[in-house]
Amino acid sequence: MSDILLRDDKSGIATLTLNAPERLNALSDAMLAALQGQIDALSGDQETRVVILKGNGKVFCAGHDLKEMQAGRQTEDGGQAYFADLFMRCARVMTGLMRLPQPVIAAPHGIATAAGCQMVAACDLAVAAEGTRFGVNGVNIGLFCSTPMVALSRNIPRKHAFEMLTTGEFIETGRAEALGLINHAVPHENLDEEVLKLAEKIAAKLNPAVRIGKRTFYDQIEMGIDAAYAHAGAAMVENMMWRDTNEGISAFLEKRAPDWRR
Amino acid sequence: MSDILLRDDKSGIATLTLNAPERLNALSDAMLAALQGQIDALSGDQETRVVILKGNGKVFCAGHDLKEMQAGRQTEDGGQAYFADLFMRCARVMTGLMRLPQPVIAAPHGIATAAGCQMVAACDLAVAAEGTRFGVNGVNIGLFCSTPMVALSRNIPRKHAFEMLTTGEFIETGRAEALGLINHAVPHENLDEEVLKLAEKIAAKLNPAVRIGKRTFYDQIEMGIDAAYAHAGAAMVENMMWRDTNEGISAFLEKRAPDWRR
Amino acid sequence: MSDILLRDDKSGIATLTLNAPERLNALSDAMLAALQGQIDALSGDQETRVVILKGNGKVFCAGHDLKEMQAGRQTEDGGQAYFADLFMRCARVMTGLMRLPQPVIAAPHGIATAAGCQMVAACDLAVAAEGTRFGVNGVNIGLFCSTPMVALSRNIPRKHAFEMLTTGEFIETGRAEALGLINHAVPHENLDEEVLKLAEKIAAKLNPAVRIGKRTFYDQIEMGIDAAYAHAGAAMVENMMWRDTNEGISAFLEKRAPDWRR
Repeated sequence: MSDILLRDDKSGIATLTLNAPERLNALSDAMLAALQGQIDALSGDQETRVVILKGNGKVFCAGHDLKEMQAGRQTEDGGQAYFADLFMRCARVMTGLMRLPQPVIAAPHGIATAAGCQMVAACDLAVAAEGTRFGVNGVNIGLFCSTPMVALSRNIPRKHAFEMLTTGEFIETGRAEALGLINHAVPHENLDEEVLKLAEKIAAKLNPAVRIGKRTFYDQIEMGIDAAYAHAGAAMVENMMWRDTNEGISAFLEKRAPDWRR
Repeated sequence: MSDILLRDDKSGIATLTLNAPERLNALSDAMLAALQGQIDALSGDQETRVVILKGNGKVFCAGHDLKEMQAGRQTEDGGQAYFADLFMRCARVMTGLMRLPQPVIAAPHGIATAAGCQMVAACDLAVAAEGTRFGVNGVNIGLFCSTPMVALSRNIPRKHAFEMLTTGEFIETGRAEALGLINHAVPHENLDEEVLKLAEKIAAKLNPAVRIGKRTFYDQIEMGIDAAYAHAGAAMVENMMWRDTNEGISAFLEKRAPDWRR
Repeated sequence: MSDILLRDDKSGIATLTLNAPERLNALSDAMLAALQGQIDALSGDQETRVVILKGNGKVFCAGHDLKEMQAGRQTEDGGQAYFADLFMRCARVMTGLMRLPQPVIAAPHGIATAAGCQMVAACDLAVAAEGTRFGVNGVNIGLFCSTPMVALSRNIPRKHAFEMLTTGEFIETGRAEALGLINHAVPHENLDEEVLKLAEKIAAKLNPAVRIGKRTFYDQIEMGIDAAYAHAGAAMVENMMWRDTNEGISAFLEKRAPDWRR
C-alpha cells in the first residue's frame, strides 16, 4: 500500500483514503496505480463486504494531476501516447470500482471536480458532506471533461449534464442529490459516521446476495428488456440456491433471526 | 377469471384487483397464472382502452410467495428448475404489462415490495395512495431483488436504485414521485376516484392513436437515436392514415368536436 | 435566409428566430427547410460558437403545420408518401440540432407543444420563460406524438413522459426543470438577457474543446460503458493535442489568463 492511498480495514469494511492533500488528491500516475492496486486486491477479497472512498485534506479530489500531464508532453509525439495510456488507466480504475464485487461508497467533501467528480459518479453510492461542490470544469482551461461525462451522463439527466460540462459551473449537494449524482448529503462533521452507518447496514446483508446483485445491476442495465430479464432471472436462481438464502427466507417465515454462515 | 384476481369492466376500463389479501397479494404461481390469463385476454381485446391494476386488503403487493418458493425446494435439484421457470413466468407477466396494447395504471397503496414494487415500475403509469411505501428489500432476507431491479433501474436514477436495492430501505410517495417511480400520490380515500379519472381521460383519446403510441414508446426507447426516429416516423405515418385521425385534425382546425367512430 | 426564420449573428453567437407568429411558428415545410438550411450552414461555420433558438410572437412553437398536413392528403396514396417524407425531414432537423458542432440553446416562451416541445428536448440546453407550458398533446386530436417522444423520453423519466404523451396535459416550467426537460426558467422579461449570458459563457470557452465535447457527448451516450470510455478517452487525447489546450492548462498552472488563438 502506498502512502498516497491509505487503507483501513474494520469489520469487513475497507476504507480507502486519497492522501495527497497538498495536491488536492489529484489522480496522478502514482495515485491511479495505487487505486488500481487496491481494486485488484479487493476483487479477490472475500472478507471485505463494502468499500468506502474518501479524501484527506480540504477536498475530496480535484481531478487529474495537471502538472504531471503537462510534463508528459516532453516526448517526440508531444505526449500523445502517454495521454492515451493515462486515460485508459483512468477508465480502468473507474470501471474497476463498478466491477468490484463490493459496493463502493464515495464520501466526498469540499470539492469533487473533473475526474474527481467522475469518481463520485463511478461509485455505486455517494454520501457527501453538505456544501460539497461538484464540477466537470475542464472546459474552463480548454480540456472538455469527456471521460468524466461517461459516468456523469449515466447518473443525471442529459440537459443538466450538458450544462455542467459546457459552462464548467459547480453544483452543490442539494442539486446533486435531486439530479441523482449523490444519494444524500450530511453535515460535514457527521460524514464519517453517516457513511460508516450506511456501510455497516450493507455489510450486514448476506454477502453473496449483495455480490450477485451488484454484478447483475451493471450487466442488465446495458441490455434490452428481454435480455435483462433473462439475465436477472438467472441471477435470482443462483441466489436462491445459496444455503444461506434458504436459511434467510426460512428465518423470515419463522419470525426468527437467520443463522447465516457467510 | 380466478377468485384471486378480480376483473371489473366499465366503459372500456378494465380493473384488475389482486385478491389474496391474507397473503398480502403475493405473486404466487396461481396469481401469476391469473395475471397472465388476463394479459392474454386483454392483448386481443379491442373494447378495453385502459387497464387499472390494484390490490385488495391492507397492501398492494408484497412480492413473491415465499412459502410456496421454499416448498419448491423439495425436488432432486433443490428447486433450481422450478425457480428458473418461476422467474421466467414472472418476467413474462411484467413485460406483458408493457406490451399490452392498453396503457396500464398501477394504483398501489400500503406497501409495494420486491416483485410488488417491480409491478409498479413495470406499469406504464402509477398513481399511489399517499404514504404508500416502496421497497426492493429482498436483500434483507438474503435474496437480492435482481429481477425487480430490471424495471426499477429503468424508472429511477441509478444511484437511488442501487441504494434501495442494497439497503432494503423503503421510500415513500413523495420521493417515489420525485425519482420517477410513480406519477402522483393522492389521499388514500381518493385513490379509486383519481385513478379512474386518469383512466377515463386516456380512454377518451382516440384508441388506435394510443395503441400505436404505447407500442412505439417501448420499441424506440431501446434504440439508438436514428433508428428511433425512423421507427417513430413510421408510426406517425401509420397514425396519420387512420380515418379518425384525419377527422380529429379536421375537427380541431374547424373548432368542432370530432366524430370519432372508434 | 428566409423571412420565416431570422438569423442574427453577434460575437460568435447565432440567434435563429422562428418568425411565423400568425401560425404559432408551426414547423411547416417552409420552416423545416429554412431550419435545415441554417443547420447546413452552421455545420461548416467555424466562427459561430453557440446557437440560440427562439420564437417571435406569443408562443415558441406549436408543432407541425396541421393545415398543410391535411392538404397533403390530396394525393392518390392519401398523403402517405408526403407524411413519410415530412417526418423524415423533421427528424433530420431534430438530429441536426444535436449534431451541430455548436451547442444549441432553446429559449422557449408561451407554449411549446408537439414538435415544438420536441425541439426543446432536441436542443442541448433550454432556458425558458417562467410559465411556459410544455405538452406533447397530439393525442388530443388523434395523432400520438410518436416522434416528439423520441427526444422527450431521452430527457425525462419514462413514467412522466408516458403521462404527458397519453393525457396530452401540459407541464409548466417548475416541473419541466425538475424532470430535466429544461435547465432553468427565468422571468419572461429577462429571457433574452439570460439566454445571452449563458451563450456568452459557453462562447468564451475554448471552441475546439466545446466541439470535441459536444460531439463526444452524443456519441458515447448510446454506447456500453467500455466502448464509451474508449471513445471518450480518444476524445481527451485529441483535445490535449490542441495548442490552445496546452496553453490553457499552462496558464491555469501559472495563474494567468490563457493566450488563446481560437
